[in-house]
Amino acid sequence: MRPDDANIAGNVHGGTILKMIEEAGAIISTRHCNSQSGEKCVAALARVERTDFLSPMSIGEVGHVSAEITYTSKHSVEVQVNVMAENILAGAKRLTNRATLWYVPLSLLNVDKVIEVPPIEYERPGLEAAGRKRYEDQKLERLETKHRNGEFILPVINPEQYTVGYSQSSLIHLVGPSDCTLHGYVHGGVTMKLMDEVAGIVAARHCKTNIVTASVDAINFHRKIQKGCIITISGRMTFTSNKSMEIEVFVDADTLVGESQEKYRAVSAFFTYVSLSKEAKPLPVPQILEMRYSW
Amino acid sequence: MRPDDANIAGNVHGGTILKMIEEAGAIISTRHCNSQSGEKCVAALARVERTDFLSPMSIGEVGHVSAEITYTSKHSVEVQVNVMAENILAGAKRLTNRATLWYVPLSLLNVDKVIEVPPIEYERPGLEAAGRKRYEDQKLERLETKHRNGEFILPVINPEQYTVGYSQSSLIHLVGPSDCTLHGYVHGGVTMKLMDEVAGIVAARHCKTNIVTASVDAINFHRKIQKGCIITISGRMTFTSNKSMEIEVFVDADTLVGESQEKYRAVSAFFTYVSLSKEAKPLPVPQILEMRYSW
Amino acid sequence: MRPDDANIAGNVHGGTILKMIEEAGAIISTRHCNSQSGEKCVAALARVERTDFLSPMSIGEVGHVSAEITYTSKHSVEVQVNVMAENILAGAKRLTNRATLWYVPLSLLNVDKVIEVPPIEYERPGLEAAGRKRYEDQKLERLETKHRNGEFILPVINPEQYTVGYSQSSLIHLVGPSDCTLHGYVHGGVTMKLMDEVAGIVAARHCKTNIVTASVDAINFHRKIQKGCIITISGRMTFTSNKSMEIEVFVDADTLVGESQEKYRAVSAFFTYVSLSKEAKPLPVPQILEMRYSW
Repeated sequence: MRPDDANIAGNVHGGTILKMIEEAGAIISTRHCNSQSGEKCVAALARVERTDFLSPMSIGEVGHVSAEITYTSKHSVEVQVNVMAENILAGAKRLTNRATLWYVPLSLLNVDKVIEVPPIEYERPGLEAAGRKRYEDQKLERLETKHRNGEFILPVINPEQYTVGYSQSSLIHLVGPSDCTLHGYVHGGVTMKLMDEVAGIVAARHCKTNIVTASVDAINFHRKIQKGCIITISGRMTFTSNKSMEIEVFVDADTLVGESQEKYRAVSAFFTYVSLSKEAKPLPVPQILEMRYSW
Repeated sequence: MRPDDANIAGNVHGGTILKMIEEAGAIISTRHCNSQSGEKCVAALARVERTDFLSPMSIGEVGHVSAEITYTSKHSVEVQVNVMAENILAGAKRLTNRATLWYVPLSLLNVDKVIEVPPIEYERPGLEAAGRKRYEDQKLERLETKHRNGEFILPVINPEQYTVGYSQSSLIHLVGPSDCTLHGYVHGGVTMKLMDEVAGIVAARHCKTNIVTASVDAINFHRKIQKGCIITISGRMTFTSNKSMEIEVFVDADTLVGESQEKYRAVSAFFTYVSLSKEAKPLPVPQILEMRYSW
Repeated sequence: MRPDDANIAGNVHGGTILKMIEEAGAIISTRHCNSQSGEKCVAALARVERTDFLSPMSIGEVGHVSAEITYTSKHSVEVQVNVMAENILAGAKRLTNRATLWYVPLSLLNVDKVIEVPPIEYERPGLEAAGRKRYEDQKLERLETKHRNGEFILPVINPEQYTVGYSQSSLIHLVGPSDCTLHGYVHGGVTMKLMDEVAGIVAARHCKTNIVTASVDAINFHRKIQKGCIITISGRMTFTSNKSMEIEVFVDADTLVGESQEKYRAVSAFFTYVSLSKEAKPLPVPQILEMRYSW
């Protein structure tokens, strides 16, 4: 972990870790889906389940990412990823994240065509049924979250401190070649890294201390984002408890140049942050003045 | 020049080139100001004169940057930088930029203390007087530009296409360690690269074609920006001619965490862009609907 | 492997691979040297043995790097690293590199103090003696290479094509925080990546085709390079055979700011390149006009 991966207090950004997790997941699921003869494909991230950040990583530590395919449906792959942080000077290793991701294999020649996933073999009989349940659960949940797509974050003129409008932030990013898969669409991990960056800025603006990502709620990747697009990532605080802040983040894509110029909501998610003292102890969080802002 | 240095049409971003120019200037002036015994210092960018982009560079070409000190006053250094693009496969080389930058040496131990600049020797007698005139001219111009500092870019709800509000854009950047000099303040070149990125997004949003930087008006770096700050870079279109677009860009810094939490205008500048067809021929530019927007 | 890791023909730069190899070596040797209680240390790269690039890697492939400690002397660690390229679409895996690196553990608190290396256990009796021989051999070789340090690459005005002066190139880099270890000195892998970049430009200038790194001769890291330094990396062609080009690369460091302003030769090495056709077949190489240039 390098200085550029971390904030000025030396804590690695949650987004850096999410990007590593997604990269591991994309590799293992692309490899699996191409393991039988037939049409070549690239796995695209469809969903990440709720992810907790158990302990912050620091500059100079080594991150270990291991991924395993734990379930396959006809058209999707479930991957479980563990992240360990190793302090190679002290010799200690600890689990920092455990994440579950869902991928869908898309044909290399026709990005709109979903390829069939070769089934995996389960070590124990109960594992397949448990996986099928997780698959059905997330499918239901994905339908339920669709209704949030319509919302937009509108600017507030001269907001008072501790209101939602005071800390809300947005960031623009022009999608470059290194952000993209072989299909020419943005890696899910790149999107999550930018989302964490915005959410972190919202949190820091609100409490003006060292903040770290505590968890990310399930994220659904409804729509792909193509190379050359401009993406606007916006975040606003939606809830504060004594020790944590919940921030909602929206990703909107704008095709800008091209045949069909359109703007659309690509992703949305909730991030939770905590505020830390110099001794890395949790600090109380100032409450937001309105619990929900009237848009 | 790598894929990430360029837009999707393969033209290297003007900002990438400005960043290289500034790095060369910072190196040569820091080296010069430390060439006599005494307090160690790092040269900070104070001003860049108007810079023209004579010809776009492409992915795979090699950029050559050469810098020369052309004038020294008691507390500042003038550097002239030439950029050549070389197509190493075709063997051809051409001049793409010629820039003039002013640096001020700041003590390594006390960033608020300006160090005296060792004088250079001039090859011909007229060169010193010509340099002194350029020095006085830019000093005057810097005073005149101060009055633009107060303006802000306010959001517009549901703007119509081709209005200023439709294409205006802003970008947030969290200042990381690699953005900074040994003093812990942002490199002028990093700021200019971000400014060009925003200006390019404004231009592309307006005319929805491949756009390239044609020139940058003189930029004054009024105030330093420290590591850990959040900077907001905002741009809006201020003028369109038949073949070009003028975009004003503001950089505002926010110290966020730290003793004195403040927001301030750090830099502002005008960028000019042209729109190119697939054959790299200039295209007509749609005119902005109001020449100046009423804020 | 992303677009920025590769040249425009899609072949991953040898330097990108050398950087990964060195990172793996630094991690494993730092971990080993801190495995006993006592003073904490960071392993610094002292030498890389001759490394062959068996087969070029491509954008979209996954690189696997595995490292193993194969010998320890009192103050140094020998690491062997294997790199495999995996085409996750085709399901094929192949060995692309096998490298041997030597590290020296330096105290975290005092970078000039070498820490004692805990001995490893050898699986078979002959392994230790073989390692000791490799250790003695490289020690001898290191002494012999010292005399090349004095040479510099001087510019040539209007060089003729295919002369040494025509293709010689140099690159300047300002050492930033992400280039450095916890000690604040440049990672050996970062230096090698820049060296390969210069050598690749020299090779492409000479034969104006798609070129790839074929091998690197042993590299000795005589002197460390500190954060904030400027490094000049220069390369010139020293030999051409029918199918390959040998390029010598020098790395000179300039402390610029700091107590003792000095310039010194930090590293030098020989790189061998081959020229490839569009079908990735080796092409004949134009011969250099003088085998050694008179400096």
